[in-house]
Amino acid sequence: MPDHEPLRVALVGCGSVGASVARLLVESADDLAARAGRPLELAGIAVRRQRPRPEVPVDASLFTTDAVELVSRPEVDLVVEVMGGIEPARSVVLAALKNGASVVTANKALMAEDGSTLHAAAEAAGVDLYYEAAVAGAIPILRPLRESLVGDRVQRVLGIVNGTTNFILSKMSESGAGFAEALDEATELGYAEADPTADVEGFDAAAKAAILASLAFHTRVPLGAVHREGITEVTAADVASARAMGRVVKLLAIAERVDGGVSVRVHPAMIPAAHPLASVHDAFNAVFVQADAAGELMFYGRGAGGDPTASAVLGDLVAAARHRVGGVNGPGESAYADLPVRPMGETTTRYHVSLDVDDRPGVLAAVAQAFAGHGVSIQTVRQEGHADDAVLVLVTHSAPDAALAATVQELRELEIVRDVSSVMRVEGG
Amino acid sequence: MPDHEPLRVALVGCGSVGASVARLLVESADDLAARAGRPLELAGIAVRRQRPRPEVPVDASLFTTDAVELVSRPEVDLVVEVMGGIEPARSVVLAALKNGASVVTANKALMAEDGSTLHAAAEAAGVDLYYEAAVAGAIPILRPLRESLVGDRVQRVLGIVNGTTNFILSKMSESGAGFAEALDEATELGYAEADPTADVEGFDAAAKAAILASLAFHTRVPLGAVHREGITEVTAADVASARAMGRVVKLLAIAERVDGGVSVRVHPAMIPAAHPLASVHDAFNAVFVQADAAGELMFYGRGAGGDPTASAVLGDLVAAARHRVGGVNGPGESAYADLPVRPMGETTTRYHVSLDVDDRPGVLAAVAQAFAGHGVSIQTVRQEGHADDAVLVLVTHSAPDAALAATVQELRELEIVRDVSSVMRVEGG
Repeated sequence: MPDHEPLRVALVGCGSVGASVARLLVESADDLAARAGRPLELAGIAVRRQRPRPEVPVDASLFTTDAVELVSRPEVDLVVEVMGGIEPARSVVLAALKNGASVVTANKALMAEDGSTLHAAAEAAGVDLYYEAAVAGAIPILRPLRESLVGDRVQRVLGIVNGTTNFILSKMSESGAGFAEALDEATELGYAEADPTADVEGFDAAAKAAILASLAFHTRVPLGAVHREGITEVTAADVASARAMGRVVKLLAIAERVDGGVSVRVHPAMIPAAHPLASVHDAFNAVFVQADAAGELMFYGRGAGGDPTASAVLGDLVAAARHRVGGVNGPGESAYADLPVRPMGETTTRYHVSLDVDDRPGVLAAVAQAFAGHGVSIQTVRQEGHADDAVLVLVTHSAPDAALAATVQELRELEIVRDVSSVMRVEGG
Repeated sequence: MPDHEPLRVALVGCGSVGASVARLLVESADDLAARAGRPLELAGIAVRRQRPRPEVPVDASLFTTDAVELVSRPEVDLVVEVMGGIEPARSVVLAALKNGASVVTANKALMAEDGSTLHAAAEAAGVDLYYEAAVAGAIPILRPLRESLVGDRVQRVLGIVNGTTNFILSKMSESGAGFAEALDEATELGYAEADPTADVEGFDAAAKAAILASLAFHTRVPLGAVHREGITEVTAADVASARAMGRVVKLLAIAERVDGGVSVRVHPAMIPAAHPLASVHDAFNAVFVQADAAGELMFYGRGAGGDPTASAVLGDLVAAARHRVGGVNGPGESAYADLPVRPMGETTTRYHVSLDVDDRPGVLAAVAQAFAGHGVSIQTVRQEGHADDAVLVLVTHSAPDAALAATVQELRELEIVRDVSSVMRVEGG
């Protein structure tokens, strides 16, 4: 039987996620009380400005515009931060931790930017800091990495963790549209924001890559160390060239164990059509994990939206509440491995390169020489003749990224190469 | 820094899973110590009989044939039970819990048969009882259900949780083979045991369904309450009929919230080819979850094998070790909802029925009348004529299973029906 004394929850932020959290706290109060061991009671909701919010079924007196005051009230046990952004979110979270409250946040930018400071503050206060909702929305991925796979050795994490870009790439693949046209469709349907920069340039995915890598490899990964490329330069020709080779284009967040370190990066990549990630369409998210003992795992679901994100927030909230009821706290930051993050140039990858070339003897030899000159070995080459010109599609073996980039640079300068029509990394086998 | 005093682990069972656990405890000792907070040291390995085990890199003196004595030693902190079966596993686990050791088990039969007794013993001793490896091998599914989705309301769990039957059904689908032929291939390749009864008759999946339902619905689900049908009667005609309708046949473990209760069952079912579970091939496992806030989630990976199962065991072991280091224990059994398990006859399902009928006027009317007489409404009907006979393929709307079964019984007795060539439930939309 749950104790009758409630745990008091301060909610910071009341956009679509915050409104869902508030509604579910009210609607599922009995279940949450039974599962947490004590009722969860909303102590207040901090908002940027006061306005009527008929979608949130709570007393109007609960709203306040002073977030720091709210989370510093002595009676507050648990704080949910879903306002997003770095400041004032960081100050609010630090004030909450200082007040001895456990914190649940959906804030990927803040956790990627300054997770270690927040973890240290949580540890000093002896409270929990959870952030499952920060990566891949409703999909449980951080807890599995932190707890289920804690006895295993993760080799690689490949994630489709940004719904906007996955929607755009899905449309490009389905219809043959270019990036701009697919972005327009995503904007119209509400899958892309008015300013889509954070999504299409890969900033959002980079924050998530940093968080995934930190947990998978027990290593602090600064956001600045994540190599980032967005999808704005992915062309219809890239998508078509991928399809011709039995592949699809996805924006991947990659965290990979490499010789004596880790590689953490976000870039578009071609993956085989039979890869489990290839069938993750539209705004869905999925995270593929390879571990020594477990083998291949995939976690799939909705990566954004008020209710899915609120599901992850409430899972963390109940976990933190159970700890509070039991007078304990869960595992904190694990960064003991302290692996170096390798620069992108040293990371070994594979390239898919499509060239429009003159159709005459010696062309393939000249192209092959360009690769060989940089120590890059070619895995497959396919030549298609058209009238007086030809298309060469080459896929390399693994080589340092810098050597591949230099090879492509040299190809662009060869007289026999009319155009380098597609260059993209290849992942997933 | 980890304390130098090790936690002592007793391992019970040394088949493929036990051997992997022992090997990983030795090979990953440093990582496990850093993650658990103290080193994990093998105190002993209980085996049925002594024999040389060169695959297990430990001192021969660690082996014993007295499991109860091993787990009752005062210095043992953690016990891993991977011997399987009900007895003597139950006595060993109860002795371990009585001794104050936390227990990690991969024993689905034991947990499904007598989980409540074991949970009560763990609670009385103030220790952990974890069993992630009991369902879907390496795939983290129990912890996500118990913790990540604890703030949500699960509506339905559909699992492909038996690799042997999924392999057989995949082969039948690929090659058009019948059950017996596909089973032979599975046996030859080592995917089916010499006595495949537990797999092909659905006993293994039923135990997993009971465990999944208990966690998803916070309700004790006795194994005897799980409706169980295996795949021995799935025919090549069923598989072909499914394909003609854009579906595939899978053996599903289903746990579903129904009006005022839960339905828990294992049976072959046709699912749409576009459903995420449809592309789970061969011996892979996957669990699909629908929850009110999270929406649709899927967890995919290897459901069996020494190393994958050992990964799940070690994840639980490190979690239990962390609790021991912190002097706490994790959440115990949650059965507060105490929902009744509805009998299969009352469960509403949909049927796919394929009939060979006389090709003459009035046949469809007579068939439709048989459905209507039992209150079953037809969603789609497709008629294909051949020479003097015809094939009718009908898919019903949801109706009580008993009414559907009675309808099929009546169809078999109709003079115009030459043969009921395929009857199977339809799931997944």
